[in-house]
Amino acid sequence: MEVINRFIALKSHVEGAPRESDFELKTEAISLMVEPHSNCIILKNLYVSIDPYQMNRMKSYSSSHKAVDSSAGIVPGQAIEAQGIAKVVASGNPDYEKDHLVVGFISWGEYTVTKSPASLAKLDPLGFPLSYHLSILGSSGLTAYAGFFDICKPRKGEKVFVSAACGSVGNLVGQYAKLFGCYVVGCAGSKEKVALLKDKLGFDDAFNYKEQTDLKSTLKRYFPDGIDIYFDNVGSEMLEAAITNMNNFGRISACGAISEYTNMERKPTIDMIDIVYKRIKMQGFLMPDHLNLHSEFMSTTCVYIRNGKIQILEDVSNGVESIPSSFIGLFSGDNVGKKMVKLFEED
Amino acid sequence: MEVINRFIALKSHVEGAPRESDFELKTEAISLMVEPHSNCIILKNLYVSIDPYQMNRMKSYSSSHKAVDSSAGIVPGQAIEAQGIAKVVASGNPDYEKDHLVVGFISWGEYTVTKSPASLAKLDPLGFPLSYHLSILGSSGLTAYAGFFDICKPRKGEKVFVSAACGSVGNLVGQYAKLFGCYVVGCAGSKEKVALLKDKLGFDDAFNYKEQTDLKSTLKRYFPDGIDIYFDNVGSEMLEAAITNMNNFGRISACGAISEYTNMERKPTIDMIDIVYKRIKMQGFLMPDHLNLHSEFMSTTCVYIRNGKIQILEDVSNGVESIPSSFIGLFSGDNVGKKMVKLFEED
Repeated sequence: MEVINRFIALKSHVEGAPRESDFELKTEAISLMVEPHSNCIILKNLYVSIDPYQMNRMKSYSSSHKAVDSSAGIVPGQAIEAQGIAKVVASGNPDYEKDHLVVGFISWGEYTVTKSPASLAKLDPLGFPLSYHLSILGSSGLTAYAGFFDICKPRKGEKVFVSAACGSVGNLVGQYAKLFGCYVVGCAGSKEKVALLKDKLGFDDAFNYKEQTDLKSTLKRYFPDGIDIYFDNVGSEMLEAAITNMNNFGRISACGAISEYTNMERKPTIDMIDIVYKRIKMQGFLMPDHLNLHSEFMSTTCVYIRNGKIQILEDVSNGVESIPSSFIGLFSGDNVGKKMVKLFEED
Repeated sequence: MEVINRFIALKSHVEGAPRESDFELKTEAISLMVEPHSNCIILKNLYVSIDPYQMNRMKSYSSSHKAVDSSAGIVPGQAIEAQGIAKVVASGNPDYEKDHLVVGFISWGEYTVTKSPASLAKLDPLGFPLSYHLSILGSSGLTAYAGFFDICKPRKGEKVFVSAACGSVGNLVGQYAKLFGCYVVGCAGSKEKVALLKDKLGFDDAFNYKEQTDLKSTLKRYFPDGIDIYFDNVGSEMLEAAITNMNNFGRISACGAISEYTNMERKPTIDMIDIVYKRIKMQGFLMPDHLNLHSEFMSTTCVYIRNGKIQILEDVSNGVESIPSSFIGLFSGDNVGKKMVKLFEED
């Protein structure tokens, strides 16, 4: 008994923007015979997550960002670890049985062989579509929830600006902020996305940053009374403009810097006099440091979903072949909401 | 009964580095006759504080930093408000009597006429020299105390880096950090200052930044295990280098950016990927927001002084004529410790 696993690997480290030619589709045969008590688990991958942070793992050690625990480099030729949802097809681990659903670190491919069940958790779908557990109920959701509530410490009525507001995290930050009672403006990269933010997601306002020539003036127009909270997903010029328009005691949740991932030169120039005089707090964070909020996040969010208070924005492509283009598209803003690739139907 | 007040005024707004020719010594006659219950208080100024932040108040509105409450612009030709210690010579305010000592906002001159006693407090010297109440027991001390303990939330054994470490605030941050149990390295701009930091103030190490060509490598040498806390008084390249060398969960207390005050182009370029992945918190602060710590700060610091645990670093010039050069010298690092000008002996 064996299956053929088709998976995506890097041909070599990636510098600058990723291209299709940086990736290859590989195949391998995987035996489904596992030794009892070997701990080995073989998973059939149903959904894999496509996230911008993978870009930082693809760089060569020298140009990539120092070795950060949570972001070990990807080795060319090998399977690429990524979050996903999968079904157990064979298990030598007594805690997992065939047909169990799991969520956690799998790989950009059709099957995953793992001996580290610590990176997996059994998944109870709670009556929701499986994909929700990669988007709103997964890392994107907890990132948005923790970054907004724990880092920004919002107060009702505060003015919130979200960049990459149609992204996997940004759309949820805006929706949480609205539900909490803030005034929320988002920016995105197309007029369709802007319409979506205003008409479907309930943002108070939104703009297409690609149509703006002077972001500082743009933000001044959208926030005549200043910004209290900036949820930053992009870095660079947008961050500079947000700081210029920030109110005293403003908070910046530094969640990502997608505009810098493919161009190391696009770093923001920060006006420290603004930071000091306006007593601005800027704080980077990573979701795994905020797992203490997980149960609060889940209970709050499940109620919002069941009551139709929050929209689920997912962007699903199909088949292992679509992983490279899905990933590449993140950096030109092709995705609307959480990008993922569906490998198999749940059956 | 009248006195002649000699005071310093700006001739015009200052752009770039201040020069002697930007200032003028003016004289005015002040009547010592005050109406009872007029609230008017006439003060003989004993010490005035010379602080870098005044630079930001001297810029023209257009180039200066937006109107920040705590830093209203200085009007050319008029007296320049500054912190200081003074003695009441005449009072129409029932709360203040002749010969009372006060601390608070007076002006860069020999006398101050005020109708806003809210900006003053009666001063009990507590047995210490009056000047201490402008330096270690004044704004510099509370700025150091609040910025280190409240913003940085240190833990014993953490590695602390202080820039402008011989400055009014920096020297105290380093001393508080040592007394708290941290490892402390400071930078300053001369070998005499470096020796002072190591030999007199008890810093674990110190270096002359003017002798360094690559600050990132320099900090890597002084902090092979990384920086946990950076108390930033200078901004620009030093901040960039500190972020590069920061550990996960590092904290930056943004107290000032003296290198940027006279050159608006010297802003740091921040690596947001560092901020995100290392979960760095950078927070600007101003001392008046931390008055809740005042009594804790005073009791702790008075004990340190009485027990000889903390050194008082003051740099006192004499006479109103020395105010401009004292101020100008701040930006070339002429001062060692808290810069102030003594106008009169207490008699």
